[in-house]
Amino acid sequence: MDDAVARALAYAKAARPGFVAQLKDFVRIPSVSADPRHAADVRRCADWLARDLRRIGMPRVRVIATPRNPIVYADWLGAPGRPTVLIYGHYDVQPADPPDAWRTPPFEPTVRGDDLFGRGASDDKGPLFAHVKALESFLRTRGTPPVNIRCLFDGEEEIGSPNLVPWLARHRRALASDLAVISDTRMLGPDRPAMTYSLRGSLGLELEVRGPRRDLHSGAFGGAVHNPLQALCEILARLHHPDGRVAVPGFYDRVRPVGPDERSFMARRGPSDARILRDAGVDRPWGEPGYSLHERTTIRPALTINGLSGGYQGPGGKAVIPASAVAKVGIRLVPDQDPGEISRLVRRHIARLAPPTVRVAVRTLQRARPVHLVHRHPGFQAAAIAYRRGFGTVPVLLRSGGTIPVVDALQSILCTPCILMGFALPDDRMHAPDEKLHLPTFGRAIATCIHFLAEVPVSLSYNEIH
Amino acid sequence: MDDAVARALAYAKAARPGFVAQLKDFVRIPSVSADPRHAADVRRCADWLARDLRRIGMPRVRVIATPRNPIVYADWLGAPGRPTVLIYGHYDVQPADPPDAWRTPPFEPTVRGDDLFGRGASDDKGPLFAHVKALESFLRTRGTPPVNIRCLFDGEEEIGSPNLVPWLARHRRALASDLAVISDTRMLGPDRPAMTYSLRGSLGLELEVRGPRRDLHSGAFGGAVHNPLQALCEILARLHHPDGRVAVPGFYDRVRPVGPDERSFMARRGPSDARILRDAGVDRPWGEPGYSLHERTTIRPALTINGLSGGYQGPGGKAVIPASAVAKVGIRLVPDQDPGEISRLVRRHIARLAPPTVRVAVRTLQRARPVHLVHRHPGFQAAAIAYRRGFGTVPVLLRSGGTIPVVDALQSILCTPCILMGFALPDDRMHAPDEKLHLPTFGRAIATCIHFLAEVPVSLSYNEIH
Repeated sequence: MDDAVARALAYAKAARPGFVAQLKDFVRIPSVSADPRHAADVRRCADWLARDLRRIGMPRVRVIATPRNPIVYADWLGAPGRPTVLIYGHYDVQPADPPDAWRTPPFEPTVRGDDLFGRGASDDKGPLFAHVKALESFLRTRGTPPVNIRCLFDGEEEIGSPNLVPWLARHRRALASDLAVISDTRMLGPDRPAMTYSLRGSLGLELEVRGPRRDLHSGAFGGAVHNPLQALCEILARLHHPDGRVAVPGFYDRVRPVGPDERSFMARRGPSDARILRDAGVDRPWGEPGYSLHERTTIRPALTINGLSGGYQGPGGKAVIPASAVAKVGIRLVPDQDPGEISRLVRRHIARLAPPTVRVAVRTLQRARPVHLVHRHPGFQAAAIAYRRGFGTVPVLLRSGGTIPVVDALQSILCTPCILMGFALPDDRMHAPDEKLHLPTFGRAIATCIHFLAEVPVSLSYNEIH
Repeated sequence: MDDAVARALAYAKAARPGFVAQLKDFVRIPSVSADPRHAADVRRCADWLARDLRRIGMPRVRVIATPRNPIVYADWLGAPGRPTVLIYGHYDVQPADPPDAWRTPPFEPTVRGDDLFGRGASDDKGPLFAHVKALESFLRTRGTPPVNIRCLFDGEEEIGSPNLVPWLARHRRALASDLAVISDTRMLGPDRPAMTYSLRGSLGLELEVRGPRRDLHSGAFGGAVHNPLQALCEILARLHHPDGRVAVPGFYDRVRPVGPDERSFMARRGPSDARILRDAGVDRPWGEPGYSLHERTTIRPALTINGLSGGYQGPGGKAVIPASAVAKVGIRLVPDQDPGEISRLVRRHIARLAPPTVRVAVRTLQRARPVHLVHRHPGFQAAAIAYRRGFGTVPVLLRSGGTIPVVDALQSILCTPCILMGFALPDDRMHAPDEKLHLPTFGRAIATCIHFLAEVPVSLSYNEIH
């Protein structure tokens, strides 16, 4: 092993307790991007991260204002002739609701056993921080990282990166990089590292049904007025066929079939139905017939109701017909579905279902195209070697059902190939109460990031980028 | 006119501004019975009301503790040989949500024009207070009311009077009365007083669908897990036929047909479809074919979703499949439907609809039987005369779609005939934001209550009570 790598690893090992303490400070800041009431917290979190990047010795660090949440950017470009690696991560987090469902408060990070509990611990503050701490380990020992570095930390990933993408487009030349690495995906278990080569796209919609001009007494008007809550249920119930297929006409038309070789590879290497059911905590599968659960969540699209609200939601009952009712609907897309086209098809279907007794409005919350990565790229190989050194085993190649909107932007706008080095575990409860980070995995992730930077080959040319 | 009545009316007229100021203090107390967080406010409201009853000169006033909210009881029994009138009202109020939808805060009573805005102003603090102020007007002038009086003010009407009813049963002998009067129903307009002779019953259910053991990331699991939000919509969408009829088998079996005479009377005297649509603020009717909107809301039962909640409800979106989803369902019943039997039919229907991929639980929130009043009773006649004197016009006889659970209890447990003297207006927004009381109507209501107590005949015997 390279002596510089050995020294960086030794530094990281000795500094581990300090790294965890810093990570707790990072998780303590409620940087919830979806909720405007947390806008000041998101800015405070960006400043905290920028301060840490300055502290570890990154020579140029900027907090870049956008119309909503800032981008944290840092670079070290002191090795002309060597490749430039762009590290993308996001410091914003999902909402923590319902807060009562947490064993310990979501923004009071708490270590129990091997795990650090807190919103964002695993998605994505811990994995982002593993890269920062790998950089620190080189900067504090060797004095420089082995390659040129750009850090690009997003404050809006959980709301679809609406401001990062246009900013990337405006600065595409200044941001030129040879390889981008993103750690916002999952492994299969603590000893089963994984690299994701495919992500679903995403389309977020909000559906509002409006009925009477004001809330009505359901004793006085029940039976004479079409209840927006009922009309909403009637519409939502008809977005799927009874067998689990999405009922929107044309929805599957552009879905690219996956060949038998890859399906057989996925069946061998991907999680089994039993494993997915266990991870989900459900007894019975559901969904599109003819596909395994791994396939249903990766190579097949899905439509999910993410939230329902309307009428009285407190304890006991209330005799009310509300003026309106709202649903949040999330659609996961696969190649070659286009978010714009799917949005039009869903809107047309809903317009057809909407009864004349209510008014229905559909708003787009966010959209992102599905992506497919080139896994024969030399950067991919460097990451695989790094995992073998950090975890003692080669990573599994995986498709993911999730969406990272920036991946498409990095590949199509910056023309920079991306690799997805996952460090989250299936039971990390990303997006759910009691989200946690497995601290031994966090330690190995830092080591893997150190190895990765050392393994990036001088030449990253690859002629199959698409 | 009786000189005592004239003096009571003069007192009430002079005291009007003070009465309104007192009513504002009454409305200011957020006595929301559905929400346990307001339990102390409900108690404070009971104490406020008891204090006012003592102040006006009621000789015996008690605040009676129950397992939940107190009953306020007062009596004046100084006229042996004369009839005893029981005045029932409720000092608890509906929840004020959503508070943002109010022009002025729900518990900061505000006069705009002729109206006093605030939660409970019309339902039922204003009408209850009209009776109290009528009593005050006699006590402060004549020194005594013209008949014996029992005041029975409930703190749990909006949650189905769960503790009042057993208390009535325990004290049925001590509470013996000749007539009960309740002012918790509507008129047809400021110059169109109305007496209600029929109320729908009520069955409140809470339906919970549980799926995964914890909230899931909808990117990772969307397409493989039956979403409780979706399953809930699928079940709720099948509680009605597409034409608006309730789809629960057996639901209509015991509905007593109403004869052509009464339907024709209702068509002549009741509100028209156009009027109901205007009051509701909707453009198009909905519901069971073959019946007018007045009939659909009075002589026909109805099933209404009163609330939906589950998943993410904040701004923007969140990629989540929640562990559970909840609906509140309110059913209005007509003679001879029985709440227990309907509850069993609905549960059986839901159990049949529930897919094996989720678990469904149904809880009963409250239940009350429908009631039909005897409108040839002499007390009814006294009330009609009082309206003619107070409003200058005879009251219309109405069926109401609402439910007052205590009416059934007063009639079946105390064997006391009830009359319903409504003072609320159709646009008072009972149960909705911006609830208000029309102050000129409040003034006439006090006068009507004064006339009513003076008109109650010495003999209230009537041999058709059933």
